[in-house]
Amino acid sequence: MTAMSTMASEYELLTPETVASYIASNPTLAELVDASTLEVAEVGDGNLNLVFLCQDADGRGICLKQALPYVRLVGESWPLTPQRVLAESRSLSVAAAVVPHLVPAYYGTDEDRYVLAMENLFGWEIWRSKLNRGEIHRGVGALLGEYVANLAFSTSLFALDQMEVKQQTAQAINPELCRITEELVFTEPYIEHDNNSFVDELAPEVAALRSDACLRSEVGLLKHRFMTAAEALIHGDLHTGSVMVRSTDGRGDARVIDPEFCYYGPVGFDLGALIGNYLLARGRAAVLYRGAEYCEWVAGLAEETWNAFEANMRRLWPTRVDQTWTDGFLDAWLQQVARDALGFGGCKAIRRIIGLAKVSDIETLPPDEHLRAATMVLRTANTWIKERQQLGGVSAANEVFLEVEAAVMQND
Amino acid sequence: MTAMSTMASEYELLTPETVASYIASNPTLAELVDASTLEVAEVGDGNLNLVFLCQDADGRGICLKQALPYVRLVGESWPLTPQRVLAESRSLSVAAAVVPHLVPAYYGTDEDRYVLAMENLFGWEIWRSKLNRGEIHRGVGALLGEYVANLAFSTSLFALDQMEVKQQTAQAINPELCRITEELVFTEPYIEHDNNSFVDELAPEVAALRSDACLRSEVGLLKHRFMTAAEALIHGDLHTGSVMVRSTDGRGDARVIDPEFCYYGPVGFDLGALIGNYLLARGRAAVLYRGAEYCEWVAGLAEETWNAFEANMRRLWPTRVDQTWTDGFLDAWLQQVARDALGFGGCKAIRRIIGLAKVSDIETLPPDEHLRAATMVLRTANTWIKERQQLGGVSAANEVFLEVEAAVMQND
Repeated sequence: MTAMSTMASEYELLTPETVASYIASNPTLAELVDASTLEVAEVGDGNLNLVFLCQDADGRGICLKQALPYVRLVGESWPLTPQRVLAESRSLSVAAAVVPHLVPAYYGTDEDRYVLAMENLFGWEIWRSKLNRGEIHRGVGALLGEYVANLAFSTSLFALDQMEVKQQTAQAINPELCRITEELVFTEPYIEHDNNSFVDELAPEVAALRSDACLRSEVGLLKHRFMTAAEALIHGDLHTGSVMVRSTDGRGDARVIDPEFCYYGPVGFDLGALIGNYLLARGRAAVLYRGAEYCEWVAGLAEETWNAFEANMRRLWPTRVDQTWTDGFLDAWLQQVARDALGFGGCKAIRRIIGLAKVSDIETLPPDEHLRAATMVLRTANTWIKERQQLGGVSAANEVFLEVEAAVMQND
Repeated sequence: MTAMSTMASEYELLTPETVASYIASNPTLAELVDASTLEVAEVGDGNLNLVFLCQDADGRGICLKQALPYVRLVGESWPLTPQRVLAESRSLSVAAAVVPHLVPAYYGTDEDRYVLAMENLFGWEIWRSKLNRGEIHRGVGALLGEYVANLAFSTSLFALDQMEVKQQTAQAINPELCRITEELVFTEPYIEHDNNSFVDELAPEVAALRSDACLRSEVGLLKHRFMTAAEALIHGDLHTGSVMVRSTDGRGDARVIDPEFCYYGPVGFDLGALIGNYLLARGRAAVLYRGAEYCEWVAGLAEETWNAFEANMRRLWPTRVDQTWTDGFLDAWLQQVARDALGFGGCKAIRRIIGLAKVSDIETLPPDEHLRAATMVLRTANTWIKERQQLGGVSAANEVFLEVEAAVMQND
């Protein structure tokens, strides 16, 4: 059994062998599964944590997630507070109240050993993997817009008294996790940094980005917004690898996971994370010449998510606690969120091409396709960021991509 | 001796008779003045606190400020945490470190009785009173720009590690005081509310403001920014009644007081408070036909403050802790602050005409002049708020006023 030391104290890490006795010793968890017949698999393929999927002989399941005191992707040289599991439990608790159909059931958190227990999502799969295979899951984009809107509304000053929002904002600060985003998303891709990597053929595109003073100042404004705009308790890392998906009778369903980066930030950041990752999937689809049905579906995801977000915000708006916020204000605020979403979406896409923590959408492509897709993503993202004020909304995201795609494909 | 009860506990209020023994019992304060020869005057003419000015036989002085557990302007029916004295001490401590020449010397805070001790500014006077008399104090506008820039820079992520900023932001939340601003500045003037009052002749102007959907949504965006944009530890109430002034050999000097509304908010709010109050002074000067020298000086205050703010930000910029913020970002951020300043300035001016807590600049005018000045202020503020994105900076504030002034004067 490994003992990990943190700034605060040491705590025992779980192993597949110790999970059953851990569950047996916890009355709440012991009721959910039969610990004596438990099968346990450690499947943490993410960047930060241990994840144990457990199933008993009757088919009942549970998922345990234990925070490591360092970044798993990098190793013990990059320490990271395991307290982040408390951030995850904060977000999951809110989501369980307002969108229980869009998150795994939440069973509680062990604050001494930084273990969070939740539903084992049998039969679900990470959305990114399905996108990579070209699978269509209709309606998932809309469900994620619904998720963002409900989390945002219910934790913001639209739903809570201002005193409550300010106390929640203070309690939910998550500086260590935010620092990762600040550095990996908004800073490192635009400078020389050991964390960056890309194929040589992409160097001219990267150099162009880095020497683009306008892009750099716009990315700076977005970073500043990420660091100062405390609008609502956002997920903070809502890419297509943070969504579990399955389809039944042609309708997709979704469960949002991994909200450990949550903090009070700009609502457009969650939408941007989705839109930026849709762009990565779109680039892949384009260079692999996926069929028209799939391409059109992926092309429509950004607007599908936005429309559901907007519809849910407008549905909730009449319930706002302070009725002196006018309808005109909502329109103006939504426009601002849409601009943020395009800008953040661009930043989230660029970091996946240049910076640390690549994505399989692009990394698993053959060399020529990789270069074309990466180029499309960088150029589209650049325009989203710089022209987000003028583009007039998320629906324009698609047109920008189509122009870039045509130019890149023509050059080959 | 009056005992006040708060949510937390009871504490004794000071009176002119008990101040000397209070000072004698505090070793730090007892060194500053001779408590046995102390003369004490209670001069709290503000809206919130008890203020005791003390002087001993040798002419040495001290000022004690004790927070009441309610809003003095309204009475015990409006309770308000005396903890706000801790907010004031937070801001004063920072200012003492970065702009000691622009704040009263700070002698410490008694957290049990909510008493803050500072320099007794003999010979200084509230700036608003001097403006009302038409006195020129050259350079004061620039000093206030210097104050805002240094406070903003030194408490922001430009000067502090992001972890420190987030912890400071959480510790400095000041929801009860912020609520006053949210309600009195951004909400009540635009709706029917018992706190509002204005002469009947102004009713058409007020009705026009309230029915202006564009203005209402822009004020909403500014309120939302005030409630969510945690850029730096701002003063939070920087009107011309929060500035003490005197002149020596034709050069004005300034001391900023009363930062109890401080919290992490948008930097443009402090600049806006100044600019909005310059507008009130300007309206008064216009209708009283003050001499050209005075009018030109008041007309130049907004730009003088802005230019000093910008110059100080640019002077400090090379010392930023994160050098990946580009110079282009600074330009873009300053442009955003200027827009905020115009918008917040408009809101601050309007509330002084319509809402609770009027200002003597306008209230002491004879009826005809009062109406003309109030009309000028409302119309100028309206344009600042709605056109702040297009106006191109604080220098345009003046042109808007000149157009409005000409129209109002012509109609008489």
